[in-house]
Amino acid sequence: MNQSSYATQVQLNEQGQLRHFLTLEGLSRELLTEILNTADSFVDMSAQSVKKVPLLRGKTVVNLFFENSTRTRSTFELAAKRLSADVLNLDIKTSATSKGETLRDTLWNLEAMASDMFVVRHPDSGAAHFIAEHVTPGVAIINAGDGRHAHPTQAMLDMVTIRRHKGDFSRLKVAIVGDILHSRVARSQIHALNTLGAAEVRVVGPKTLLPKTIESLGVKVYYDLAAGLRDVDVIVMLRLQTERMASAFLPSQGEFYKLYGLSRERLAVAHPEAIVMHPGPINRGVEIESEVADGCQSMILKQVGYGVATRMAVMSMAMSGQTTQ
Amino acid sequence: MNQSSYATQVQLNEQGQLRHFLTLEGLSRELLTEILNTADSFVDMSAQSVKKVPLLRGKTVVNLFFENSTRTRSTFELAAKRLSADVLNLDIKTSATSKGETLRDTLWNLEAMASDMFVVRHPDSGAAHFIAEHVTPGVAIINAGDGRHAHPTQAMLDMVTIRRHKGDFSRLKVAIVGDILHSRVARSQIHALNTLGAAEVRVVGPKTLLPKTIESLGVKVYYDLAAGLRDVDVIVMLRLQTERMASAFLPSQGEFYKLYGLSRERLAVAHPEAIVMHPGPINRGVEIESEVADGCQSMILKQVGYGVATRMAVMSMAMSGQTTQ
Amino acid sequence: MNQSSYATQVQLNEQGQLRHFLTLEGLSRELLTEILNTADSFVDMSAQSVKKVPLLRGKTVVNLFFENSTRTRSTFELAAKRLSADVLNLDIKTSATSKGETLRDTLWNLEAMASDMFVVRHPDSGAAHFIAEHVTPGVAIINAGDGRHAHPTQAMLDMVTIRRHKGDFSRLKVAIVGDILHSRVARSQIHALNTLGAAEVRVVGPKTLLPKTIESLGVKVYYDLAAGLRDVDVIVMLRLQTERMASAFLPSQGEFYKLYGLSRERLAVAHPEAIVMHPGPINRGVEIESEVADGCQSMILKQVGYGVATRMAVMSMAMSGQTTQ
Repeated sequence: MNQSSYATQVQLNEQGQLRHFLTLEGLSRELLTEILNTADSFVDMSAQSVKKVPLLRGKTVVNLFFENSTRTRSTFELAAKRLSADVLNLDIKTSATSKGETLRDTLWNLEAMASDMFVVRHPDSGAAHFIAEHVTPGVAIINAGDGRHAHPTQAMLDMVTIRRHKGDFSRLKVAIVGDILHSRVARSQIHALNTLGAAEVRVVGPKTLLPKTIESLGVKVYYDLAAGLRDVDVIVMLRLQTERMASAFLPSQGEFYKLYGLSRERLAVAHPEAIVMHPGPINRGVEIESEVADGCQSMILKQVGYGVATRMAVMSMAMSGQTTQ
Repeated sequence: MNQSSYATQVQLNEQGQLRHFLTLEGLSRELLTEILNTADSFVDMSAQSVKKVPLLRGKTVVNLFFENSTRTRSTFELAAKRLSADVLNLDIKTSATSKGETLRDTLWNLEAMASDMFVVRHPDSGAAHFIAEHVTPGVAIINAGDGRHAHPTQAMLDMVTIRRHKGDFSRLKVAIVGDILHSRVARSQIHALNTLGAAEVRVVGPKTLLPKTIESLGVKVYYDLAAGLRDVDVIVMLRLQTERMASAFLPSQGEFYKLYGLSRERLAVAHPEAIVMHPGPINRGVEIESEVADGCQSMILKQVGYGVATRMAVMSMAMSGQTTQ
Repeated sequence: MNQSSYATQVQLNEQGQLRHFLTLEGLSRELLTEILNTADSFVDMSAQSVKKVPLLRGKTVVNLFFENSTRTRSTFELAAKRLSADVLNLDIKTSATSKGETLRDTLWNLEAMASDMFVVRHPDSGAAHFIAEHVTPGVAIINAGDGRHAHPTQAMLDMVTIRRHKGDFSRLKVAIVGDILHSRVARSQIHALNTLGAAEVRVVGPKTLLPKTIESLGVKVYYDLAAGLRDVDVIVMLRLQTERMASAFLPSQGEFYKLYGLSRERLAVAHPEAIVMHPGPINRGVEIESEVADGCQSMILKQVGYGVATRMAVMSMAMSGQTTQ
């Protein structure tokens, strides 16, 4: 069995519905489109006076964060509360493990408390998969970022953004710019764009920050920013993960900006109505010029709002897939 | 435009209703009275079996604390939950700023999550104002203390206390005692008392802890405690902000107590039915003798309960002012 | 008045209903049985789709933890939320006490916020009692562990486990194994088992970890594990509180396991359908072999789930006892 069909088997129930949300690999265009449609309905809801639905009422969602990420944790916490779930936030570093309990024991204990969903952020690739494989039936696992592997809710909120603002994927050229090598978001984005039928997916960055096998994922590789951005409809800037980078990859942040930072001049070579995206938090003047980040083509803040809606979508779908299987 | 009318413009919507709550400067007696009346209704509710109303149901309140204050944060958290809001607690020091995000970006991100209200505590004077000026329409800002400038919910809960226990302000002499210079509460109290028509407002303290221009705020200045307390109906003790004081202001805490601490003997010169207030936490034996703090004239614990009710009042009023403008 | 009747007086209202839950000493078999029955009903509820009842709606539960215990705090937090209470988590070490406030003032302040229940974890024996004696009428105190004295909800969840899986106490031989001396759980368990009429209660451990007066509690003492486990129906392993032990009590963890660790071989001397319990978190290979901990006789994870139900039971009963007195 190849990796995709394996992931599919873990993520879907026998009716082909989502029961965990771990990776975009192996998910069909129909399922991704269902996520987009569900997220759209929650985007509409967030503009209403009462931003709350009872879809997860009486359910317990545990935010299980093995690395600190206030932003991601906050959007999941809000998503769960707006679905009317009870939420337990656990910072695992400071908890039972200090009394000698293993990760497996910690998880078993949380399951035993009749938890219904774990939102898992972990520095190791594959951690969410591992947990999904070993969890009690009925408990849904949502991957909130695992090592360099995947960050699928981030990728899906980007797809929500693109579809809402640029429409049909089949007419779109998309460029992903920056540190592809260290980005768990980029891998998920490439899978989603290809599955949703984007006309062209480009990756743009220095050789040292592009995985050697990247073309096998179905993307065009550009080392030159101007060439990579020419005529694209969507620009996805990645965050420079300075804390993840060994010193040898790049001479300096200034050097990076000179070659790959998004300025107004460089943006001008893209389609005049191109949108600019960034997963945040942005490093102003490192990957992106403030005038672009705050400009009319920027989707950066809209992405945050769509992020809550996208998380509500996958959480409610996975919970539903657990209870109907 | 003077400072008062500027603050008024930011805080009120076009119908003159509260939409942010930043400072008491510029707020009319009618509006302060509306806050007192609304708070009174929530005080009554807190004695009931179910202490909860749906006024903020489906709304998201973010507690944005840039300095630690468990007590104030807890009362705001309880107030929000009793209004049925969803609450997100953010300790900003440990969050996204460590990844290089600016304060402005952090706020924009929180707004983008469809937050409805920020309760802001910040060490810098004017921080809540700054945020209110730059926030998206529809998001209410509540000042939970900004530097030395203001702590308006504290001042209003003091007014609730005074009105409930001493009645009509126009018949009352009020003495504010202690470190006026470093107190954000004192400034707010003076504004509130003058606006509500207190017969006489006195400030009592050593020259080094009284701002030079204090008389311009419409108060009588006393350097001697016995003189300052004579015949007053209300005594407001301030907290000795030892952590804010440079060493030169005072010889010692013992020295301060000898001159300005409230003992039973000193309390005896006030009106026999005078009430004693303190914003807490109290430094027993520094500003106030335990027998007075725990005595029958003390309002200190009642103030805490009125604090939750007062916060419910301004939160529900500001939210209402945002949605009707 | 002896200690039991004193504790009874504090814990029960005039109708003999629970109003605080501090210790099992002095509680009648009828009352313990009522707790077991109520917990059973919440165990059933936790298998339902909506795990939530409105018994504490509009009530404020404060988790007041003076020592860190993520596991216990989480189960109380979930229990409170499933009873529909509003929950405030306070880690007391980092809060107001750093501004010079005494414990008594902190408690008074929390009461003044119209809190309805304090769940108290404290390193000092008797802390929950002390708080219960001084708290405002109407506020229920739940002991979540005080020093070496008691951990009554843990003991009651063990009783829930035993009754659900082994039935009538009068036919059961129960062995409690390990560090009795430092265990607040063991004392509570012994009281509960005797009150509920267990046929035989044994304690098993090295002389250095058995209190000298332990036989006065109505237990049989065994220094040899094989003898102590012979024919028992229930084995209660205690956690080796390595962080509480002075170095002189035991030569090493390996030595302890050799003499008192529960292996499959040793388990074989017990009744073939004996159940194995442990309060968690387990030290694999120190008190218990992994094959036993994860085996079919182990109740360890079921205990965690019963723990939430048991906490819901005592919280709802104590709240009810406060409001009807």
